[in-house]
Amino acid sequence: MKLIRIGQAGAEKPGALIDQTTYIDLSDVVSDFDETFFGSGGLDRIRPVVAERAASGLATPIGSQRIGAPIARPHQILCVGLNYSDHAAETGQAVPSEPILFTKSPNTLVGPYDEVRIPRGATKTDWEVELGIVIGKRTSYLESVDDAKDAIAGWLLVNDVSERAFQMERNGQWLKGKSAETFNPAGPWLATPDEIDDVRSLDMWLDVNGTRRQTGSTSTMIFDPYFIVHYISQFLVLEPGDLINTGTPPGVGMGFTPQIWLNAGDVMELGIDGLGTQRQNVIAPR
Amino acid sequence: MKLIRIGQAGAEKPGALIDQTTYIDLSDVVSDFDETFFGSGGLDRIRPVVAERAASGLATPIGSQRIGAPIARPHQILCVGLNYSDHAAETGQAVPSEPILFTKSPNTLVGPYDEVRIPRGATKTDWEVELGIVIGKRTSYLESVDDAKDAIAGWLLVNDVSERAFQMERNGQWLKGKSAETFNPAGPWLATPDEIDDVRSLDMWLDVNGTRRQTGSTSTMIFDPYFIVHYISQFLVLEPGDLINTGTPPGVGMGFTPQIWLNAGDVMELGIDGLGTQRQNVIAPR
Repeated sequence: MKLIRIGQAGAEKPGALIDQTTYIDLSDVVSDFDETFFGSGGLDRIRPVVAERAASGLATPIGSQRIGAPIARPHQILCVGLNYSDHAAETGQAVPSEPILFTKSPNTLVGPYDEVRIPRGATKTDWEVELGIVIGKRTSYLESVDDAKDAIAGWLLVNDVSERAFQMERNGQWLKGKSAETFNPAGPWLATPDEIDDVRSLDMWLDVNGTRRQTGSTSTMIFDPYFIVHYISQFLVLEPGDLINTGTPPGVGMGFTPQIWLNAGDVMELGIDGLGTQRQNVIAPR
Repeated sequence: MKLIRIGQAGAEKPGALIDQTTYIDLSDVVSDFDETFFGSGGLDRIRPVVAERAASGLATPIGSQRIGAPIARPHQILCVGLNYSDHAAETGQAVPSEPILFTKSPNTLVGPYDEVRIPRGATKTDWEVELGIVIGKRTSYLESVDDAKDAIAGWLLVNDVSERAFQMERNGQWLKGKSAETFNPAGPWLATPDEIDDVRSLDMWLDVNGTRRQTGSTSTMIFDPYFIVHYISQFLVLEPGDLINTGTPPGVGMGFTPQIWLNAGDVMELGIDGLGTQRQNVIAPR
């Protein structure tokens, strides 16, 4: 299934994509794709409903409706830093010996086509196309990397927007440059694991104003998604619906000479094979 | 008011303390002390109810009921690091020029008398008595430090339990050593601002197995609570019910020579003037 949330911000309704232009409304079956949904076997519950409604021709046109993030605001957003060896090199940092973790405020989550707002005082706002993991159940102390498969509800595309001056030059920790409002576009859909043949071999890209800036593949991750979920579960308890951003490939603005930063009026477009594409207009501070 | 949540973990009911042994049940008036409650003027709504019920003699004995954390699991727990000059010195780190921020997973929140569980593989588990701030409304880009007063719902006592090896020796960032389950005892009560004369002059202490380890006062904070809320609001959006731990005074285990770490069987007791006391038994990993 490809799960979507459709409607105005704060009033999105859950559904399942059928094709590029139509979806099955699920708002009479589940209230939202949130912690309660994932934690109570919601994915198994809606699967037959989606199949039955699709077979009955109950698809609705998306039309001009807004697509929101495909999951509700999660309990936590965790991120892995420097998880592509060539990205670590471009930022002048060593390849980590074990995953670097940081967080974003959960209320940074927005839809895939929403505006990204530059924070007040920002001077080095940057982009990061990333694979996101959504957790499917309460997860702690996984015994093996293999066990991580059962803990994952699905995959999605995220843009881990970052303000490098706040992240690096404001006396730590990184969250200062990661948590501004609108800094986590996600979606358009959450792909359940059966939708993706091999999550460790997905091409990904990001353009700014039509110029290709990031080109990569999840195949060059240092720590793969299953390793990451197993690893994190040794330090804290993951809740159903939690989001993990798994790091970005080369081509962030910080890595260019001279460095390139986002300005109001810029347009970011990004995508990952099988997980759709995003487009965000960058707007000025409030 | 002194707000409490009483009952088994996950099923706490909201109430207001009247004295050491009795409280007013408010579960018929509000469902919980959560984001919705604080964000919808809940404090103003319950104030006359508490006064009326207290005047009518409707207090209930606490008896042997469990006291939970006085707020529901928040949207985020933010923490300020090295916020007491003498604590920075004892850990061998420079006094920060601006607040260091880090996060704890929100599901670390437990009650003031609950057990604290040492994480698997931990070797350097430590204590930190701290003043906690609860946010009262959605807060972003406060114009002045004075404006922070209106953004604060109240104050509470927290123990910012920390695993120093995970925090410092596992390739960053600090959250790795801050987010294990049970690592954020809070309460027993949330004191609304009118209950505390001067939050910048509260004595605080922590004992381990009856030996005084931390002695301090909020008067030696580098960045005071109002400064902190104003500061954080420049980087991210604070939601109603968010918790901010404001740093710890000298006397953590890491600061002793030789260093002292928690073991299963240890007992932590801590308190802050006007905010009550806590007591936690330390237990072995799962």
